[in-house]
Amino acid sequence: MTFRASVLTLYPDMFPGTLGQALAGKALADGLWSLEVTQIRDFATDRHRSVDDTPAGGGAGMVLRADILARAIDHVSPADDPRPRLLMSPRGRPFDQAMARDLAAGPGAVIVCGRFEGVDERVIEARGLTEVSIGDYVLSGGEVAAQIVLDAAIRLLPGVMGNQVSGETESFETGLLEHPHYTRPAEWEGRSIPEVLTSGNHARIEAWRRERAEALTRERRPDLWAAYTAKKPPPER
Amino acid sequence: MTFRASVLTLYPDMFPGTLGQALAGKALADGLWSLEVTQIRDFATDRHRSVDDTPAGGGAGMVLRADILARAIDHVSPADDPRPRLLMSPRGRPFDQAMARDLAAGPGAVIVCGRFEGVDERVIEARGLTEVSIGDYVLSGGEVAAQIVLDAAIRLLPGVMGNQVSGETESFETGLLEHPHYTRPAEWEGRSIPEVLTSGNHARIEAWRRERAEALTRERRPDLWAAYTAKKPPPER
Repeated sequence: MTFRASVLTLYPDMFPGTLGQALAGKALADGLWSLEVTQIRDFATDRHRSVDDTPAGGGAGMVLRADILARAIDHVSPADDPRPRLLMSPRGRPFDQAMARDLAAGPGAVIVCGRFEGVDERVIEARGLTEVSIGDYVLSGGEVAAQIVLDAAIRLLPGVMGNQVSGETESFETGLLEHPHYTRPAEWEGRSIPEVLTSGNHARIEAWRRERAEALTRERRPDLWAAYTAKKPPPER
Repeated sequence: MTFRASVLTLYPDMFPGTLGQALAGKALADGLWSLEVTQIRDFATDRHRSVDDTPAGGGAGMVLRADILARAIDHVSPADDPRPRLLMSPRGRPFDQAMARDLAAGPGAVIVCGRFEGVDERVIEARGLTEVSIGDYVLSGGEVAAQIVLDAAIRLLPGVMGNQVSGETESFETGLLEHPHYTRPAEWEGRSIPEVLTSGNHARIEAWRRERAEALTRERRPDLWAAYTAKKPPPER
């Protein structure tokens, strides 16, 4: 079954964007996922094709109208659509690797890209939109955030990554940040590859990598380290 | 002074991508920022134009070579370049609104987009790359992450956003998630705009919005709520 992505946006030309090339682009060409992009403005009802209006109660910016957005959503996602409906929004649930895995295991996603000050709250409630945030920063619109969510999910679809092992040992899958990497040349600008990595001793290499991954996580991400140590019993030494 | 962005990538056609349209695209056309995109592969030294090699110590995936990447960096960013050099990486410092503001206040950024398993650690050290992560998920490459970082910074450049007030009241700038928004129609599918917002009483509207923003933050992001309450004395009631 193909993973079906439907994106609703005021900037359809932003898609497929980064998703049209490299890993995701090849998977798209190979039919491992599909992409339908819908212009919200096509569902406007006046001759100016307006989609937004001033916020009730006053204030800056414009708000995407509930009635217009609902018409667009209903067109691409009928009431019995099994796919989750996401709204990219800085107010949303933080997107993480577990959500990427859940999405990849499902039938696809309907993704609404916000613009302006925000989206009328009533359409969020009435159409069951799940607000999702890719991080604690503000973007000019949800389009690039939607590409993040789709990229993270698509690379996990069966057949997309050439090397499944690579996916399983990387950052977040183990709960630790990844250890440092080195490759040829062995010596570069007076800097050598750490001796252990060229020792051929697989047990030592494994131990070194784990030690470095743990140290990096402890230093850079005390929050991830706390979650990791809470879950795992301390290793026997 | 124009904000100068230099991007190093194996997929130059992914740029400007989302940054070529809407707010960032208009600012680019208006000369409020500039974008230089460099193909890392152009700095390969063999006839196969190879940029990567197998990881020292074994394991899955391929590692971007220090020597090739350093040649590309040196070409676009001389030693006295005042711009920060960022490497998009899930191991990096979490990108947030404060970093976006710092970037926007500076001369620009040099951004290296990782691909493959990772980048040789020696080039990160030798060229002073700051690893930056946009969130706790794994992407197929750093290109879309670079667009996130640039979008968040560009919208904060002077002259880019039409309405400066809008930027100051939104999520993360106040330490709270944003309150819900409503606009016309007043009634839609049996759902009304909350009465307070149409009351014309600005003090009541402000109080309602703050109460909703606080409640949303408490419910959805206990982490942000804790940081917010630690900084602010409790309001007098």
